[in-house]
Amino acid sequence: MHRTQTRHVTVEAHRESVRRLLAPLRTPDRVEQLPLLAALGRGLAADVVAPLDLPPFPNSQMDGYAIRSADVPDDGAELRVVAPVPAGATPPQLAPGTAAPIMTGAMMPPGADAVVPIEQALPAVFPAHDTPATVRLPAAPARNFVRDAGSDIRSGALALAAGTFLGPGQLGLLAALGFTEVPVYQALRILLVTTGDEVVEPGSPLGPGKIYDSNATLLESSMRQAGLDVTRTGISTDRPEELAALLRRHAADVDLIVSTGGVSKGAYEVVRQAMEGHAVDFLGVAMQPGGPQGVGTFDGVPVLGFPGNPVSCLVSFEMFLRPALADLFGSPAPRPVVRARLAQALASPPGKHQVRRGTALPDGTVRLEGGAGSHLVSALARSNALIQIPEGTSALAEGAEVEVWML
Amino acid sequence: MHRTQTRHVTVEAHRESVRRLLAPLRTPDRVEQLPLLAALGRGLAADVVAPLDLPPFPNSQMDGYAIRSADVPDDGAELRVVAPVPAGATPPQLAPGTAAPIMTGAMMPPGADAVVPIEQALPAVFPAHDTPATVRLPAAPARNFVRDAGSDIRSGALALAAGTFLGPGQLGLLAALGFTEVPVYQALRILLVTTGDEVVEPGSPLGPGKIYDSNATLLESSMRQAGLDVTRTGISTDRPEELAALLRRHAADVDLIVSTGGVSKGAYEVVRQAMEGHAVDFLGVAMQPGGPQGVGTFDGVPVLGFPGNPVSCLVSFEMFLRPALADLFGSPAPRPVVRARLAQALASPPGKHQVRRGTALPDGTVRLEGGAGSHLVSALARSNALIQIPEGTSALAEGAEVEVWML
Repeated sequence: MHRTQTRHVTVEAHRESVRRLLAPLRTPDRVEQLPLLAALGRGLAADVVAPLDLPPFPNSQMDGYAIRSADVPDDGAELRVVAPVPAGATPPQLAPGTAAPIMTGAMMPPGADAVVPIEQALPAVFPAHDTPATVRLPAAPARNFVRDAGSDIRSGALALAAGTFLGPGQLGLLAALGFTEVPVYQALRILLVTTGDEVVEPGSPLGPGKIYDSNATLLESSMRQAGLDVTRTGISTDRPEELAALLRRHAADVDLIVSTGGVSKGAYEVVRQAMEGHAVDFLGVAMQPGGPQGVGTFDGVPVLGFPGNPVSCLVSFEMFLRPALADLFGSPAPRPVVRARLAQALASPPGKHQVRRGTALPDGTVRLEGGAGSHLVSALARSNALIQIPEGTSALAEGAEVEVWML
Repeated sequence: MHRTQTRHVTVEAHRESVRRLLAPLRTPDRVEQLPLLAALGRGLAADVVAPLDLPPFPNSQMDGYAIRSADVPDDGAELRVVAPVPAGATPPQLAPGTAAPIMTGAMMPPGADAVVPIEQALPAVFPAHDTPATVRLPAAPARNFVRDAGSDIRSGALALAAGTFLGPGQLGLLAALGFTEVPVYQALRILLVTTGDEVVEPGSPLGPGKIYDSNATLLESSMRQAGLDVTRTGISTDRPEELAALLRRHAADVDLIVSTGGVSKGAYEVVRQAMEGHAVDFLGVAMQPGGPQGVGTFDGVPVLGFPGNPVSCLVSFEMFLRPALADLFGSPAPRPVVRARLAQALASPPGKHQVRRGTALPDGTVRLEGGAGSHLVSALARSNALIQIPEGTSALAEGAEVEVWML
């Protein structure tokens, strides 16, 4: 039995280590061209410049009458109604003294410079086709209800920057610009290894002293949700030589190995032992939970060693791996960061950055779910947020404003 | 040309109409049993009760020495070190006057009631195997560092309620409880139809007066992200008889039809016209954007008619369809609702609920992205949030606190 002295680092320093570990994976041969919908959830691999104006042409914001505003003085005017302009049509020049029924999104007739909404016209309904008609319009409109060409984005402007996460809004913009494909980074292939002699697969009988493996499900689903391509090995025993053999078998086929457990300062730390002779650094991050961490390479393949408790695993993923991937590859999306008021007081170890689980509520408060313990999976399942309590804070009062990452 | 008089309803009333429209789809034959990872993103179809305590047995929260605290008076004690307790083992009774090295997560030996962390022991490293040793421990610990059986959740307690969204945290809890499968609602099958003579498929040439269809991509990706099973028909022209034929062809194979465009009070409203003779209500919701809405059934199949502008489509999905699905089927997850301070002032039509797009920032403010216009897809692509300005509000100052839905 032995115990290794441990180097201590800050949360920020370890996040930067993880980023540096993965940065070499961002190579040109990892870029692929995908149809828009297949790119949902990926990160954009190159800047996209708008090839056209949006809107492409001036068009009406309302159903109403396209007019020359000089034709409608402050006391209103009676104008002759000409042929209507449906969306999609190319209208002729609007003659002075006339008004053209125009539909939302339809091209403004040349010569027209404003739209009077149908609600303001007298009568407030469009006339029947091919019937000579006039319409009474009130004072010239204060707003012109015209969407100018390029008022959303101009041709030649940067539409989306490389590294942007591609969600519905971003893909919608690419479609509006006429794109059918987009260059994205390939999904990283992850080997996920959970360890521990105490851990058994769900569905098996649970002997005394044993627990069901929740880390594998928690992390594999987090990684899949983050767009990663996950291979699981099943639970490794606490025998270092078995773990090392398993890693050697799979390492060549993956971009990153993530293990759980066996990185602490206990007497049986299988991941530490299996990594002996490899360039893996085991250290203590000033964070609760999730302090013990491993980072380095095994046979040249990047390795992250997460601690063994489920909440520590999730916190490690969210605090280190997800931000590094978001920063390097634009996917997954970074967690939205907001502020909320604590619904109750809390204590925190002043020498550590504490990450608590909570529920952000519509009234602007955040409720703690469970205590600080890293084994509280039921409390985790009730949470929608991670509450960040920075190093140097030993207590926060009810109502204190805190940084909250939305899960 | 004609113009129909329109019934006006509140946002809440229309959301309830959408919920009532879809409620009959929640039937027992739509429940399926899935392996945990396949259930990611689905909604739980039945209550799940914990079949065991979590933790299942009292265990150590630290690497340290398990002791009987009566053995360590306030001035400390020297205890004989007995065989270590690794995680996963079933330790024997702890004899009085002895201390057992114990690892995080390992079962507490019967008789032991506290753990002294290894950092507080003298020496602060575990002795080598099979070497007679003693350890000096300081005053009895203020905390016992024991995780009691059932302290996270007790056997027989409700673990997850029917209707819970199954994300990583929830699936992790189910795994920790030993489950391998879970009952979930099947994904709804949606027929998505975009309409408009002005709309052309991305990738085709863009003639004058035409725009690229972004609604289909925006909504299909939103729906896929929400776990729905989407069929797209391609763009329908503005000829009502063609649209009706297309709907009749597909209606029998889907649970819900969603159309975009053609529901307003203009002269060419293809969806309104195609739905004539069907039980579809076209109404005005007091909301900006997204006011014109259709709701009802076509050949007995539920129909939602969204308006034609892209931002209106997204807002309709987020304000009506997503909340109804979340409420009925537990999937997709409801949008997290937080509060933020406006980074700039805004105006809002007092008779309407306004939904603006914005970016929630880590300093607790929310920045508006673009104006109120429903055609602003580039501004939408920069946003991570919907800002809710309730009916009755005409202006809000910089710094005013608003309700924000995180996208």
